[in-house]
Amino acid sequence: MSQPLRVGVAGLGTVGASAIRMIERQSAALAARTGRSVVVTAISSRDRAKDRGFDASSMTWFDNAVDLAGSDRIDLFVELIGGADGIARDSVTRALAAGKAVVTANKALLAKHGMTLARLAEEKRAALAFEASVAGGIPIVKTLREGLAGNSIRRVSGILNGTCNYILSRMEQEKLSFAECLADAQRLGYAEADPTFDIGGFDTAHKLAILTSLAFGTAIDAEAIHVEGIETISLADLAAADELGFRVKLLGVAERGGNGVEARVHPTMVPKTSAIAQVMGVTNAVTVDADAVGQLTLVGPGAGGEATASAVVADISDIAKGVRSAPFGLPTAALAQVARIPVQRHEGGYYIRLDVADRPGAMAAIATRMAERQISLESIVQKASHSAGGGRVPVILITHATTETAVREALDKVVADGFVSGKPQLIRIER
Amino acid sequence: MSQPLRVGVAGLGTVGASAIRMIERQSAALAARTGRSVVVTAISSRDRAKDRGFDASSMTWFDNAVDLAGSDRIDLFVELIGGADGIARDSVTRALAAGKAVVTANKALLAKHGMTLARLAEEKRAALAFEASVAGGIPIVKTLREGLAGNSIRRVSGILNGTCNYILSRMEQEKLSFAECLADAQRLGYAEADPTFDIGGFDTAHKLAILTSLAFGTAIDAEAIHVEGIETISLADLAAADELGFRVKLLGVAERGGNGVEARVHPTMVPKTSAIAQVMGVTNAVTVDADAVGQLTLVGPGAGGEATASAVVADISDIAKGVRSAPFGLPTAALAQVARIPVQRHEGGYYIRLDVADRPGAMAAIATRMAERQISLESIVQKASHSAGGGRVPVILITHATTETAVREALDKVVADGFVSGKPQLIRIER
Repeated sequence: MSQPLRVGVAGLGTVGASAIRMIERQSAALAARTGRSVVVTAISSRDRAKDRGFDASSMTWFDNAVDLAGSDRIDLFVELIGGADGIARDSVTRALAAGKAVVTANKALLAKHGMTLARLAEEKRAALAFEASVAGGIPIVKTLREGLAGNSIRRVSGILNGTCNYILSRMEQEKLSFAECLADAQRLGYAEADPTFDIGGFDTAHKLAILTSLAFGTAIDAEAIHVEGIETISLADLAAADELGFRVKLLGVAERGGNGVEARVHPTMVPKTSAIAQVMGVTNAVTVDADAVGQLTLVGPGAGGEATASAVVADISDIAKGVRSAPFGLPTAALAQVARIPVQRHEGGYYIRLDVADRPGAMAAIATRMAERQISLESIVQKASHSAGGGRVPVILITHATTETAVREALDKVVADGFVSGKPQLIRIER
Repeated sequence: MSQPLRVGVAGLGTVGASAIRMIERQSAALAARTGRSVVVTAISSRDRAKDRGFDASSMTWFDNAVDLAGSDRIDLFVELIGGADGIARDSVTRALAAGKAVVTANKALLAKHGMTLARLAEEKRAALAFEASVAGGIPIVKTLREGLAGNSIRRVSGILNGTCNYILSRMEQEKLSFAECLADAQRLGYAEADPTFDIGGFDTAHKLAILTSLAFGTAIDAEAIHVEGIETISLADLAAADELGFRVKLLGVAERGGNGVEARVHPTMVPKTSAIAQVMGVTNAVTVDADAVGQLTLVGPGAGGEATASAVVADISDIAKGVRSAPFGLPTAALAQVARIPVQRHEGGYYIRLDVADRPGAMAAIATRMAERQISLESIVQKASHSAGGGRVPVILITHATTETAVREALDKVVADGFVSGKPQLIRIER
């Protein structure tokens, strides 16, 4: 048996503590699987005194994670601090610079500095692994990086944020408002005190940036992703979706187009009968469409200490076995700078909800504006019983495939015509 | 860049030809991913003349797969011949004995000789990989062997045979008889001329034997699996299931019990709202329940040339990168000989369909026999409209959790009482 793999863990929140307990609990199995023992030899966190359910007496304590990262008491550095910059970035950089393997769950760090870190890892011949950074316990990074090595991938999409899916599921099932569901999510620890990062779609975008790079062999480019959150989704939208056979999910979608990659995060209408529509609550799901394998879907827990730690420990196990994969599947020099297709060029169906003045000519004007932009309508629903008050009624339009630009232009005209009040609601449809 | 990896492929059916075309198509990406070029240098098959969509002119032809396996023109042998013995076994043994890596899709071979082959691979320090042997393009072997390395697995279950799922899906959706759906499956190439292996559950059992070993770290023991096929499932069962909120699927299930592992293959009632119930047609799905990750489900194509070749090429890519995993996750000496819990000790709910004489006392006698064995009933459905003819009516019982032994004994008594005709139908329920 080889030398033990000495692991240092920085950040002892739920995931860090779970990972350390898991390494201890699975000690014999990990040694049998990898051919060497895996031992946590050093830790660092903000609060030294706290009891975290493991015996820290044999571990060296570091007040500073960067010192831990550079210490010659460890071979592998686990970064669970979080944040795109500051100590997370400094400590990961320090570990890689010292030629140590790094395992991280930090999607913000990877979305912003992934390329720089991957180049450093490559230069120092150090492993950089991050299964836990996307979709918690679901092994999607491994699947894209290794399991589909023979495939050319067309599309990767999924529910990547449990907070948003929890809120949308509860709104739909219990007819509760967005605000009520958000408050419950915060109370249950599914959402942060400042929920912008989750509900604004930014967390999903960071994860999608990583998946896009892995799926298409492209350099990470989180800035190029079009991001919309779920803040504007109302019960009226969910009720209309239900009536039309859809559910609303916050999806991250990246797909290869004729001359580039289109990557976007937004609330999406999906058919109620689709696999993705069955994914409720904090569960995550990722679907990959590829030339050889066709469609592959992975469903599992997207967050939680134990599930995320499961991904951290799998990465540690691979590194202990000596597995060498380029962080993003290909050498950094081979990662293409692919043109990003702007969302304005997106083609697909749209759901449109308008508050329309209940007077003659309104529907004719709307229909005309759509026709002017060659937008053909699959269905129009107008119900007096759903009166929005003030002599206004909600009108729901479902379009056949058209372009984002055409829809936006038509709606600008509709608003200018003065028949609708408020901002039109626009939700993309994926079938 | 290292030396090229020279691959020999024996068996040039749909999967073999797809794999060779895929290696050529993905040549640049595979080289970038693995750091070396992957080249098919030798082939063997029954019919040399056939055009298979790739240029074989630079490949050495072998009339005999065993000679190919031992040839010093290859570093890696791909076995796609099939069959538990004969030339498949001989050629894999020959390749491993010569220290060559082996990739195979042959579940029958692994179910029967997996331990012997794994020991030989270990002794010769040769890789033995078989992602393609279970659930086609779904990376479940990699997930169990690597992706869940930190987990203790409680249960692995799934739809592992596309032929059976196709037949059951069509019977349910189109109210066609088993015989009609089987004939269609044969016409479409989903089922063999002799379909016993698929519909009798044996193909599922071979795959389950492999998954059981990977999930629980146990020696392969296909003989210990209880196997029932779908031949006895009637439209009456599917209609009753539908009414009670269930669908019928052929599941392979392996779960850790108090003092062993219970592994079984049989038609199963699953709630219509469950994820597994949504899997229709030739699609496969595998669910893993584990202590850390909770529940993880993988859904994808279980068969087909391209999807299966995708798994073959992923294994080749890992071997090209130098990944070393023990074939069944652990060294063979560490694979436990775990006690197999016989199906008689299975505890769960049961669906029972009886053709009952339409005369006084019948229901009382049945209910008494159930009560004598402490079997409590969740529901009883008896409908005159469903008359089975000859003064007999079908009666459906759904039991609460009980043991297989209790149910079997109670039904023996019911049959002896003379109120029912024919063999009682018994289908296990998994919720």
